[in-house]
Amino acid sequence: MPSIEVKNVKEKIEYRPNENLLDILLESGHFVDNPCNGKGTCGKCKVKIIDGAVESPSVTERKLLSEGELESGVRLSCMVKPSGNLKVELLQKEREHKVLTAGYKPRFDFNTNIKKVLVQIEKPSLQNQTPFEEQLKKATGLKSIQFDNLQSIEYDDGVYTVVLYDEKVIGVEVGDTTESLYGLAVDIGTTTVVCELVDMNTGKELSNSSMINAQKHFGLDVLTRITYEIENKADGKEKLQEAIVKSINDMIEDICNKEGISRKSIYEMVVSANCTMMHMLLGVSAKTIGKSPYAPIFTSSKNIPANDIGIDISRFGRLHCLPSVSAYIGADIVSGAYVCNLENRKGNILFIDIGTNGEIVLSKSGRLLCCSCAAGPALEGMNISSGMRAADGAIEDIEIDEQGNISLKVIGDKEPIGICGSGILAAVRELVKSKIIKKDGAFIKLEKLEEDDFRNKLIQMNGKKREFIVYSNGKSDEKILITQGDVRQVQLAKGAILSGFLALLEKAEITMDELDKVVIAGQFGAHLPADSLTGTGILPDDISDKLEYVGNSSKVGAYMALMSKDVKENMEKLSINMDYMELGAVKGYERLFSDCLIFPKV
Amino acid sequence: MPSIEVKNVKEKIEYRPNENLLDILLESGHFVDNPCNGKGTCGKCKVKIIDGAVESPSVTERKLLSEGELESGVRLSCMVKPSGNLKVELLQKEREHKVLTAGYKPRFDFNTNIKKVLVQIEKPSLQNQTPFEEQLKKATGLKSIQFDNLQSIEYDDGVYTVVLYDEKVIGVEVGDTTESLYGLAVDIGTTTVVCELVDMNTGKELSNSSMINAQKHFGLDVLTRITYEIENKADGKEKLQEAIVKSINDMIEDICNKEGISRKSIYEMVVSANCTMMHMLLGVSAKTIGKSPYAPIFTSSKNIPANDIGIDISRFGRLHCLPSVSAYIGADIVSGAYVCNLENRKGNILFIDIGTNGEIVLSKSGRLLCCSCAAGPALEGMNISSGMRAADGAIEDIEIDEQGNISLKVIGDKEPIGICGSGILAAVRELVKSKIIKKDGAFIKLEKLEEDDFRNKLIQMNGKKREFIVYSNGKSDEKILITQGDVRQVQLAKGAILSGFLALLEKAEITMDELDKVVIAGQFGAHLPADSLTGTGILPDDISDKLEYVGNSSKVGAYMALMSKDVKENMEKLSINMDYMELGAVKGYERLFSDCLIFPKV
Repeated sequence: MPSIEVKNVKEKIEYRPNENLLDILLESGHFVDNPCNGKGTCGKCKVKIIDGAVESPSVTERKLLSEGELESGVRLSCMVKPSGNLKVELLQKEREHKVLTAGYKPRFDFNTNIKKVLVQIEKPSLQNQTPFEEQLKKATGLKSIQFDNLQSIEYDDGVYTVVLYDEKVIGVEVGDTTESLYGLAVDIGTTTVVCELVDMNTGKELSNSSMINAQKHFGLDVLTRITYEIENKADGKEKLQEAIVKSINDMIEDICNKEGISRKSIYEMVVSANCTMMHMLLGVSAKTIGKSPYAPIFTSSKNIPANDIGIDISRFGRLHCLPSVSAYIGADIVSGAYVCNLENRKGNILFIDIGTNGEIVLSKSGRLLCCSCAAGPALEGMNISSGMRAADGAIEDIEIDEQGNISLKVIGDKEPIGICGSGILAAVRELVKSKIIKKDGAFIKLEKLEEDDFRNKLIQMNGKKREFIVYSNGKSDEKILITQGDVRQVQLAKGAILSGFLALLEKAEITMDELDKVVIAGQFGAHLPADSLTGTGILPDDISDKLEYVGNSSKVGAYMALMSKDVKENMEKLSINMDYMELGAVKGYERLFSDCLIFPKV
Repeated sequence: MPSIEVKNVKEKIEYRPNENLLDILLESGHFVDNPCNGKGTCGKCKVKIIDGAVESPSVTERKLLSEGELESGVRLSCMVKPSGNLKVELLQKEREHKVLTAGYKPRFDFNTNIKKVLVQIEKPSLQNQTPFEEQLKKATGLKSIQFDNLQSIEYDDGVYTVVLYDEKVIGVEVGDTTESLYGLAVDIGTTTVVCELVDMNTGKELSNSSMINAQKHFGLDVLTRITYEIENKADGKEKLQEAIVKSINDMIEDICNKEGISRKSIYEMVVSANCTMMHMLLGVSAKTIGKSPYAPIFTSSKNIPANDIGIDISRFGRLHCLPSVSAYIGADIVSGAYVCNLENRKGNILFIDIGTNGEIVLSKSGRLLCCSCAAGPALEGMNISSGMRAADGAIEDIEIDEQGNISLKVIGDKEPIGICGSGILAAVRELVKSKIIKKDGAFIKLEKLEEDDFRNKLIQMNGKKREFIVYSNGKSDEKILITQGDVRQVQLAKGAILSGFLALLEKAEITMDELDKVVIAGQFGAHLPADSLTGTGILPDDISDKLEYVGNSSKVGAYMALMSKDVKENMEKLSINMDYMELGAVKGYERLFSDCLIFPKV
């Protein structure tokens, strides 16, 4: 394998060609700043190539790097795909927090609930008729053995492997099976489910699988699914549960085949999810989450036999569901707050996960306050005329230059067929920047423009409505557009998130200046560069240089809880210490919300 | 209702006509000695009628009572069915122990694991979004709620009934259901299953149901059933479990219909059974119980959700299985030893349950030693040429007078069709008494008898084999006989039990004189009068006046454990304190056994 030498670092990094330099460096534990998360837009992941051959700088690099930098060998590491031996110099000083595409993960000690121990069962005799169970108790030093273990046992002398969960035997296996001990860290999003297979003997993350949540058949957002439950009294709850359980079982199948292990050697699954998904996974009614006053059936963590809800792993396997705070601050957010160590970090830190719901947690020197904003599905590309998911052919970034030329960044470098969430935000950002829409969100009137104004060619009339033409392949019915209605959708989302942000700061009596960090969590947030966030006014301009991206901290939290009972306990405590503020109950919130609908000045 | 006044007792007993005087007195808590358990054979349940009219003495009474007794108004209380007001005098002095047909039951305090409490769930609001679970925790003062309770809940304010098992919520029901709280005490015998419905609010025993154990399809005794498990690897264990579970569910159906209650309002079932039945009920392999060295998978008590093994009661219902001591000293014997308070009674007490296995517990001033004897099925009417179960038409007692006339007692006063266990014992007793069989068990030779010997007409030759004619209706192929082989079967049973009895005494260093009581337990034992036990030499002659009958103490133990968690705990301790002696491992046992095959001198 080729290797990379980092200046002043002794150990060389071996790597498989076909990865970009940023990922190679991050994965080997080096810190490289990359606010845009490897998208080639922020220009911050600079490294200097000291020795070795790489391809010539790309157009993007020529745009984002100065001539002097290019001459001295500085490159954007996310744009460089090395194939041979290299020597590089890192240019960033700050090393405190790493940002990984997979999600930032702090150091922690492994201390799993699940353990395997070997025991020797002696051959009984007329002088020693000790029951099998009593031999097990003696060998493990435990007072009781969970009963169902005994149902699959035959009394035979020899070596057995006992699976312990804390101080309870949850499995007894013939022979020495201590090598086979696997777990799953699962993040159930409303849209996507991510499943990670972990070797619990070593903590090694072996494989990931992700898929669309099969509950999509019952609605794309949680409210529609809750409505499905309400309207299908007979079996709505059961069908929602079956769908998500099936998704997970399919992923387990996939991941186990990939790694060549038996699903029966998986003994624990830790799930992070929003509160609605957790109710639906566990077969608990989510009805009251869907309507004011939004009181759920449960928020505390749950630990049950995984087979009880149909998860097909070891018959002794446990399912641990992480705790939520409230109906709209779920375990995914508790996980994120835990992973980012919000409780123990100094300063005022704001954590935000942007999606259909924007969840915000503010840590004022460790005191945690949180709220949830109903942003609506616009930011995920839903309810938008040309909206689509972030898949091949989706426009994910847009730039309008001063001549009115539009450049597009399309996922998979394909002919564009629609706009995904980050593309919509980028579009609105550009519309604001180029003053095609006004502060109140209305398109400018064409009759008010000079004849030679570049904006004339970007707007078309559809009856009395104005529309921004993002892309046209010549066929008028295949144009990709941003309509006035689309802008309103984004405006509502922006108003919801910004007002939540400001209401939290006010409640905590913190000014914008006093805010030290803004942590962006979640898969969607990872694709939102700072200029989209501030340029659309979702977040105030002041936060640009305070941004930190942590990726899928929900799944990372599930992984950490899987590998440590202390993490489980601490997350439970954390969930209780997070004070929830219901925006609907905040005095003057309606006014704040309407103020926050205004787009920023350019 | 008519009433009975007992001399020197203030309170009168009201009774329903149609019961016999013995039962009326026993049920109202008075002590009346009755070794034969109300069968009219022992003549010990004497009372004196001081005032009031009763029917004239029966033939049995005239036989068992002296002329002086009859003149002074003494009667056998089991033979008297009063219909009006009476005044009686009790003639026994000892009052320490009661004997009941249903089973002797000591006084104890109710202290159930299951409790129902009412809680008020408040309506949530935007200011108070407390999850349903947290409201429950607060209302009950508990730290955790067993998860599956939440699966059937809808969040609604109002009154709920919480079902607690110790400090755990096992059920949440809408509205006030505190009145509906039922339990089951179950005794699973190899042959018969008895099920009792109990109102757990009051401890009242509402109804009984009993049926043949449906496992009979897989063999009549435990060894045959274990062989079935071994020979049917694929599903033998499962079929055995299904059979017994179905038996119990059928009885629950029956008993609930009878009492007009819902099976879903039954929250706990306590089971007493032998160790093999307990394994089979719980779906645990009983293979090793069937072969030396007889080490079972488990002996300790089990407490699991009843639905887990298919018992159809409340979905939150618990199944508590009482502890065994060893493969052949089961929970039925632990129950019996507990009910009879063997640990805490003074003196040397021997407890014996006679059946296919004879289980014996010896208490030497509270130190308990036990053993089990493989008596074989002869005593239950199996493997006997004319053997049958104790049902209508079964001969249950036999008497041969000095002229060789045979009188029979037949269940249901029907034409005899066979002999049940107690009848076989009675027959062998009479054969011994009349010297038709010799001490070694062999029939006397006809050629050795005088011509006028009454025994000539009682014996017939079948080829070279001699047979005792118990009953003949004239058709030679319908004769009821006791063959030499039958006598051998009884002899083996007798040898097994007597040798166990003697080995225990020897191990405990107790002489026959030092033995204070012999307690006969079990439904079968309840039908064995003293003269059958000693006349056949199953037990030595010396114990006749030390006998005490306690009936189905196994089911009584299940009832007590159902109504008291202290009883459950104490039985667990008791099971650990009962030292088991494996007869096969006792030095010189083979010799003792063959000595014990000898029938007693007349």
